[in-house]
Amino acid sequence: MIQQQTIVLPEFPKGIHLITDFIMKQLGTLPDRGLLHLFLLHTSAALAINENYDPTVRQDTDYLFDHLVPEHLPAYKHTLEGADDMPAHFKTIIAGSALTIPITQGRLHLGTWQGIYMCEFRRHGGSRHLVCTIIE
Amino acid sequence: MIQQQTIVLPEFPKGIHLITDFIMKQLGTLPDRGLLHLFLLHTSAALAINENYDPTVRQDTDYLFDHLVPEHLPAYKHTLEGADDMPAHFKTIIAGSALTIPITQGRLHLGTWQGIYMCEFRRHGGSRHLVCTIIE
Amino acid sequence: MIQQQTIVLPEFPKGIHLITDFIMKQLGTLPDRGLLHLFLLHTSAALAINENYDPTVRQDTDYLFDHLVPEHLPAYKHTLEGADDMPAHFKTIIAGSALTIPITQGRLHLGTWQGIYMCEFRRHGGSRHLVCTIIE
Repeated sequence: MIQQQTIVLPEFPKGIHLITDFIMKQLGTLPDRGLLHLFLLHTSAALAINENYDPTVRQDTDYLFDHLVPEHLPAYKHTLEGADDMPAHFKTIIAGSALTIPITQGRLHLGTWQGIYMCEFRRHGGSRHLVCTIIE
Repeated sequence: MIQQQTIVLPEFPKGIHLITDFIMKQLGTLPDRGLLHLFLLHTSAALAINENYDPTVRQDTDYLFDHLVPEHLPAYKHTLEGADDMPAHFKTIIAGSALTIPITQGRLHLGTWQGIYMCEFRRHGGSRHLVCTIIE
Repeated sequence: MIQQQTIVLPEFPKGIHLITDFIMKQLGTLPDRGLLHLFLLHTSAALAINENYDPTVRQDTDYLFDHLVPEHLPAYKHTLEGADDMPAHFKTIIAGSALTIPITQGRLHLGTWQGIYMCEFRRHGGSRHLVCTIIE
């Protein structure tokens, strides 16, 4: 059995945001056992799994994305939509637009320190849409 | 219910190629609701989701992969298969060999600007095989 | 139908390790057709698909992760858990915590040269837990 719903995320500033609780609230009751697939319908923001506790991990993650994929490289051709646009596309390819997470005994089966990151790579990304598919 | 088929992709030159339409044509009719899983059976080419419109995004993506993972680093040990081989392996790990995309109302549920990228990282990669699995 | 089990991996030193055979042994008989989803319950180790043959690919992969995400960057704020900790978090985001692999005719449908990598990014990561979900 497959259930699907689209969640509208709140607008986030550029940076890495923990959205585990927000998503779980929107999804409501989960099946006993299955998989949750999350798919972000955008090309300049991404999803990832990482530490849910110390916020400096999220700050350093944002820093490392900027460090690896800087703005204003002279070789960039795709510059019309702003200096943060092409870096945001490539960071999205690095992190990925989708996650699949196991569901066990009616809960997301995450490790103790794992949370769901919404990586907003644009300075004014606006609100983002997430397609959630549950397989049970 | 699970359907599976293997698609043979046309040979592509090194670079980033939009294959959304090719894949949809090969798959034919999709179920009303489900997931499409794509899995590339190779270690030097990858799949990604990103902008389907401006070709400079794909050109800059190819540039950024080369920029991050250069050929001829003195530390490389895996050099026998050509200067583009080890970089191609690592770029594949960065981008990933697989995608899972929601299917809604009989269509791939992609965002307006999203398309499927085939990232060919070898200069002579040959034809590539893609296993497509549909869950409904 | 969905089956789930948690596998405890042996402790690995920092580096890239081929775990295809270990996982297949733990899983036992696979269904005729379906998907295998692997999810690592940790934030400083990752999964990837790449070459199963020449070990220099795994050595160069470990080198490239270190090269891209060095220890001791002055900007790091998350330093309390050791110099390898923040790099390990970011490398995990690059490679990803999960894999989905097709199952065809009762076998993992991998390409000839593909294997499953466990990327241990910590120097003393301890044993790691992997949630395996099979959809048939």
